[in-house]
Amino acid sequence: MKDVCVVIISRANYGRIKSALSSFKSKDELNLQIILGASALLDKYGNVVEQIKSDGFTIDSKAYTTVEGETPTTMAKSTGLLISELSTIFNNLDPDVVLTVGDKYETMATAVTATYMNIPLAHTMGGEVSGTIDDSIRHAITRLAHVHFVTNEISEDRLHRWGEEPERIHNVGCPGMDTVKNADLSPISMGELKERYGGVGGQPPLDEDYLVVMHHPVTTEYEDTRHHIRETIDAIRELQMPTIWFWPNSDAGSEKIASEIRSFREKNDPDYIHYFKNIQVNDFNRLIANCSCMIGNSSSAIREGSFLGIPAVNVGTRQNARKKGDNVITTGYSAEEIVSATKNQLSHGYYESDKIYGDGNAGERIANVISETKTIKLQKELTY
Amino acid sequence: MKDVCVVIISRANYGRIKSALSSFKSKDELNLQIILGASALLDKYGNVVEQIKSDGFTIDSKAYTTVEGETPTTMAKSTGLLISELSTIFNNLDPDVVLTVGDKYETMATAVTATYMNIPLAHTMGGEVSGTIDDSIRHAITRLAHVHFVTNEISEDRLHRWGEEPERIHNVGCPGMDTVKNADLSPISMGELKERYGGVGGQPPLDEDYLVVMHHPVTTEYEDTRHHIRETIDAIRELQMPTIWFWPNSDAGSEKIASEIRSFREKNDPDYIHYFKNIQVNDFNRLIANCSCMIGNSSSAIREGSFLGIPAVNVGTRQNARKKGDNVITTGYSAEEIVSATKNQLSHGYYESDKIYGDGNAGERIANVISETKTIKLQKELTY
Amino acid sequence: MKDVCVVIISRANYGRIKSALSSFKSKDELNLQIILGASALLDKYGNVVEQIKSDGFTIDSKAYTTVEGETPTTMAKSTGLLISELSTIFNNLDPDVVLTVGDKYETMATAVTATYMNIPLAHTMGGEVSGTIDDSIRHAITRLAHVHFVTNEISEDRLHRWGEEPERIHNVGCPGMDTVKNADLSPISMGELKERYGGVGGQPPLDEDYLVVMHHPVTTEYEDTRHHIRETIDAIRELQMPTIWFWPNSDAGSEKIASEIRSFREKNDPDYIHYFKNIQVNDFNRLIANCSCMIGNSSSAIREGSFLGIPAVNVGTRQNARKKGDNVITTGYSAEEIVSATKNQLSHGYYESDKIYGDGNAGERIANVISETKTIKLQKELTY
Amino acid sequence: MKDVCVVIISRANYGRIKSALSSFKSKDELNLQIILGASALLDKYGNVVEQIKSDGFTIDSKAYTTVEGETPTTMAKSTGLLISELSTIFNNLDPDVVLTVGDKYETMATAVTATYMNIPLAHTMGGEVSGTIDDSIRHAITRLAHVHFVTNEISEDRLHRWGEEPERIHNVGCPGMDTVKNADLSPISMGELKERYGGVGGQPPLDEDYLVVMHHPVTTEYEDTRHHIRETIDAIRELQMPTIWFWPNSDAGSEKIASEIRSFREKNDPDYIHYFKNIQVNDFNRLIANCSCMIGNSSSAIREGSFLGIPAVNVGTRQNARKKGDNVITTGYSAEEIVSATKNQLSHGYYESDKIYGDGNAGERIANVISETKTIKLQKELTY
Repeated sequence: MKDVCVVIISRANYGRIKSALSSFKSKDELNLQIILGASALLDKYGNVVEQIKSDGFTIDSKAYTTVEGETPTTMAKSTGLLISELSTIFNNLDPDVVLTVGDKYETMATAVTATYMNIPLAHTMGGEVSGTIDDSIRHAITRLAHVHFVTNEISEDRLHRWGEEPERIHNVGCPGMDTVKNADLSPISMGELKERYGGVGGQPPLDEDYLVVMHHPVTTEYEDTRHHIRETIDAIRELQMPTIWFWPNSDAGSEKIASEIRSFREKNDPDYIHYFKNIQVNDFNRLIANCSCMIGNSSSAIREGSFLGIPAVNVGTRQNARKKGDNVITTGYSAEEIVSATKNQLSHGYYESDKIYGDGNAGERIANVISETKTIKLQKELTY
Repeated sequence: MKDVCVVIISRANYGRIKSALSSFKSKDELNLQIILGASALLDKYGNVVEQIKSDGFTIDSKAYTTVEGETPTTMAKSTGLLISELSTIFNNLDPDVVLTVGDKYETMATAVTATYMNIPLAHTMGGEVSGTIDDSIRHAITRLAHVHFVTNEISEDRLHRWGEEPERIHNVGCPGMDTVKNADLSPISMGELKERYGGVGGQPPLDEDYLVVMHHPVTTEYEDTRHHIRETIDAIRELQMPTIWFWPNSDAGSEKIASEIRSFREKNDPDYIHYFKNIQVNDFNRLIANCSCMIGNSSSAIREGSFLGIPAVNVGTRQNARKKGDNVITTGYSAEEIVSATKNQLSHGYYESDKIYGDGNAGERIANVISETKTIKLQKELTY
Repeated sequence: MKDVCVVIISRANYGRIKSALSSFKSKDELNLQIILGASALLDKYGNVVEQIKSDGFTIDSKAYTTVEGETPTTMAKSTGLLISELSTIFNNLDPDVVLTVGDKYETMATAVTATYMNIPLAHTMGGEVSGTIDDSIRHAITRLAHVHFVTNEISEDRLHRWGEEPERIHNVGCPGMDTVKNADLSPISMGELKERYGGVGGQPPLDEDYLVVMHHPVTTEYEDTRHHIRETIDAIRELQMPTIWFWPNSDAGSEKIASEIRSFREKNDPDYIHYFKNIQVNDFNRLIANCSCMIGNSSSAIREGSFLGIPAVNVGTRQNARKKGDNVITTGYSAEEIVSATKNQLSHGYYESDKIYGDGNAGERIANVISETKTIKLQKELTY
Repeated sequence: MKDVCVVIISRANYGRIKSALSSFKSKDELNLQIILGASALLDKYGNVVEQIKSDGFTIDSKAYTTVEGETPTTMAKSTGLLISELSTIFNNLDPDVVLTVGDKYETMATAVTATYMNIPLAHTMGGEVSGTIDDSIRHAITRLAHVHFVTNEISEDRLHRWGEEPERIHNVGCPGMDTVKNADLSPISMGELKERYGGVGGQPPLDEDYLVVMHHPVTTEYEDTRHHIRETIDAIRELQMPTIWFWPNSDAGSEKIASEIRSFREKNDPDYIHYFKNIQVNDFNRLIANCSCMIGNSSSAIREGSFLGIPAVNVGTRQNARKKGDNVITTGYSAEEIVSATKNQLSHGYYESDKIYGDGNAGERIANVISETKTIKLQKELTY
């Protein structure tokens, strides 16, 4: 029996690994351990405790680790706190493998703690390039990780070039696609959303054309955060269509974005926008699958978006170097550019499905690799 | 005026960066900030507070961050605690550049904190390969660092191959060589050492042939630690020559090594060995420059040793893949191999000086690069 | 020269110690050190950095220590984190005396850290009884503190009965009264407030009768928090007068209160209420000095309120056992009781000033005691 | 079913609560949870993991929390870290009652965390007075605790005088006496001890008259620590009898004491002394029950010593105000006084058993109270 421990640190994390959790659970030779930390426990960013339980999983340990402030200082401090907590939790749970997902800043905490404790570390999404500070984090985790579950050939090739040992690299696709592939993608109504998630704002009808907006902070552009979000706000104001808008994640700058949105609401009371903190993955997929255009800088427009062929306007630098499908138009930060690109997408409509982030069977492949690997060597030996 | 902040986390760290500190201090356009953390504050591992002050530097902040236990768990937890502390200290000192040294596990704390806080990070020794877990840490830090001060061409070449941007890479040599180059290397007597550093054990004469032993834990071989140190002890017992032995550093396994050494002393009371916790860099250089052979797994046998041509027996895997000069014979862990290699070295005697880790001007070059660089771009763009 | 270090952990804290800070600063033999931590740095709860600077003080160190979640778990964890940070800061600043204010949960961190580090601890508000969990914290700090600055004779008497040594007890009054006494208490307009502090909600006129509402969580009644705030909301809704409402402090339950208020706003859009996170002490005093009734469970209705003779309705158990003046009517949690008591207060109008919390010279007395005390004995010897 | 959680933070802690653990375990309506933290996990201070397991208990969670340095700064920081860890552990274990033992500095962490998290806190040894800084900690914990298990009438009376509610106070005696009462007190040989615990030093025969020495640091006399331990060393040197000496606990100053002892051993190689880090409670009781005199400042000479009638010399201020039986002679710190008092005790021999710390049934009484109490009110209401 092998204990596989997955550390989930945000709602997005959960969506990107859920199919692998199911595959782990279905295998007799694996015992799944789930740890929740960071924003995954916070209502403000989308507490996933209830969702995980209702999906039939058991949570082994929970740790509050987000230090308030939403500044670069507290991003670092929260990471330190998470390492401190995980060291105790790993020591008590004693897992055989730890799996960490993606590149959010707290992910580094899982990577450092597991590798320092001589626990083999598996990592998803290694080798991707977004063109932001997340790259440094993702690539640093690659250097610590013992098993790489990459999502496409470009990433796979990159890891080879960097000298990672071939037997550690597995191109399995993105588990986020698994969820999309098997999802119920029927339209969702404003009423359903409202009842389940509350939120604030007007009641835009979702049986017409509607937009989905997600604008997260770019931590290296911390000083320009207010300027950038104002442009996005101006664009949405000009488009004035039914819009579902998600509050930002917890990266440094988040509080600035939230405060600009609140101030806009206060002054303009826009009845065509409804704001949600977060919604469950399945409802999220139904929502974006039927929207006319996604706007902002979330990677879901690029990843899930390509699989589903959703027209998307990708704003600014946050996804700079990430592999993109035809469904994406990238713009600068100005309201003008955003509006113009959105209009083009609205007239274009849906795209063909593009499997650049996997075919929807990643979770099963991940579980197979972990289950079948006899021993994972702790000492890495780069090929050069 | 540019604030350059150096985080020192061990006695070895200080020795490896001291010449750069002097160069920083001598430049009007730079303001040096020094932070001490981790084992640099602990008497047991060589508190460097007094030495740093007597060398004329001012310490800006001190933080105790080593969690007791000397296990893999506490290595992780101590790193988390150091991140937490550094985030507050950086926030208060507000440096323009942070410099971190080498690859000890706590070094990662400096790297994570600085980069998360959008402070440009410079790193020494990037691209070296020792063949131990330190490699993962060193390479992960390279992925976070914005400026790389490498010590030789092999390292430089490796960083290029990994896609690090050429303008960020500076082959300056190892600042540890600077200290050696300018050092007084006259013989040191047992009496001098005893008076300055106390220590325990016999009074071996240092005007005869003598050995210097350093055996540190290999964290990935945590379970075999006791077996390995016993072999080294047996070897020294068979050689039975005047010997100066240094207690191990604070990595996981350290307590096991110390306990075996104590137990050996208790039973055998070997009057030919004297044990020190640590001694100042200048006295250390005098000590090794005049010894007949260095034994163990410290990198100083390989780095300073090559510059000074000191015969060295490198035991086990800890320095596996590190670039070595002719002065080094590497052996397995058995007492037999260690004894035989040492006898070979004793009959060979001193080697030619080999400049594979630099020519002794690294500190000045580092200070020049930092002083002359206008802006350090935070967003890294790997060449592939 | 004596270094007096004051740790400020919230906006309320600052208001309650500001006059002492001024007195410290005016004395040549004292050197004031100011540390900011916890909610004092958070915009959400009233960041006081700018105010402290504009009042002419220098901040020596800042530490983010509030762990997100606003649950009992994070109250404890935040306190642990603050201790960890303060230990490093005290070690670097090396104060001769530390002063801590009141009974907010983080105050315990200052008390534990200073006393564990053998630094004499002075404490304000010892011996007060509010009838809530704050009592346990306040009384525990009294047991740690070396100098007690109490605010009235009842408190003084209590400390004597508990065996605290008489020479450590100083009845100086509450420094919060000093600020009130010397304050400009002219009316403040909605326009002024809005311009300075933003806030959200309607524009109630403040030249008519108006209410000031503060409803904080009671941590031991964590489970009933939503029920209680809903009653207060219902009462205000029924009264439907111009109202200024302050968001709750950061105690566990705070997020529940905020969410109920937001939900009420969403549904009812009450134009007679304006909500502020916090405002500066001087503007706060102008605001309450001219209101018709204070409603809620803040101690300012009882302390500043008695000095100024402001009609107040004190809701629920949070101030249960605190000494109250004639200006206060205490009620249960029901909307009905709150409405009825408020109507009584509106018809009564202003009360006589009551000096039960001091005459307005506390800060000067505190500074004198600290300045004149030669040595503060660390070893306490209770009288029984 | 009621979950009773006991936090054990040192070897001494375990000895003082073991009988209660057995009673908890024997009751169907109680579920025992055990958390180990601080020095209870450290070999250096007496890791109790193996002992607890071999006594048949299950450990629910372990947390490393001791920050190295053994200074006042690290005492505070370690306490902060323990709070941070306990908050997560309590949140995951969700106990109904938490029990904390005595007054070691980390005990405060348990008290703060439990009470802040609204978990009823029971405390042993409240109301005792030792005349050291521990008093402040013990009394502060009393103010936080909801149930007081005191060990004698004097303590009981003190708590009444301080206004603690009578129904919360239970005079049950000290659970440490339970262990003594039921113990096998047959003589133990040097050979047995050596085989089980190793230790260092000579092989003094224990079938002759022998001494047991324990000298712990007094944190408020941190600066005089070296002076004091040297006097004790001189005394033992003059007495020159078979002696078993225990290394000090982890309070600030501990490293100074250890270093003086090591230096004494180095110079004098005293074959009449054997040093142990710690031994199991049962062997400890056999050892002290048959010694001729206990010397030092440990409370076991006063507590277990009175029950067993062991002649004891209590050195210095550490136990100043603790209730003492006839078996104790208290002296100043000078070697002369210690030698003279010890000679008096050697010629006096054993004393009558004195039950001032309980009759040996404390554990059962504690379990009964906890099992029978329906609800423990969280809100304390002091009687004045």
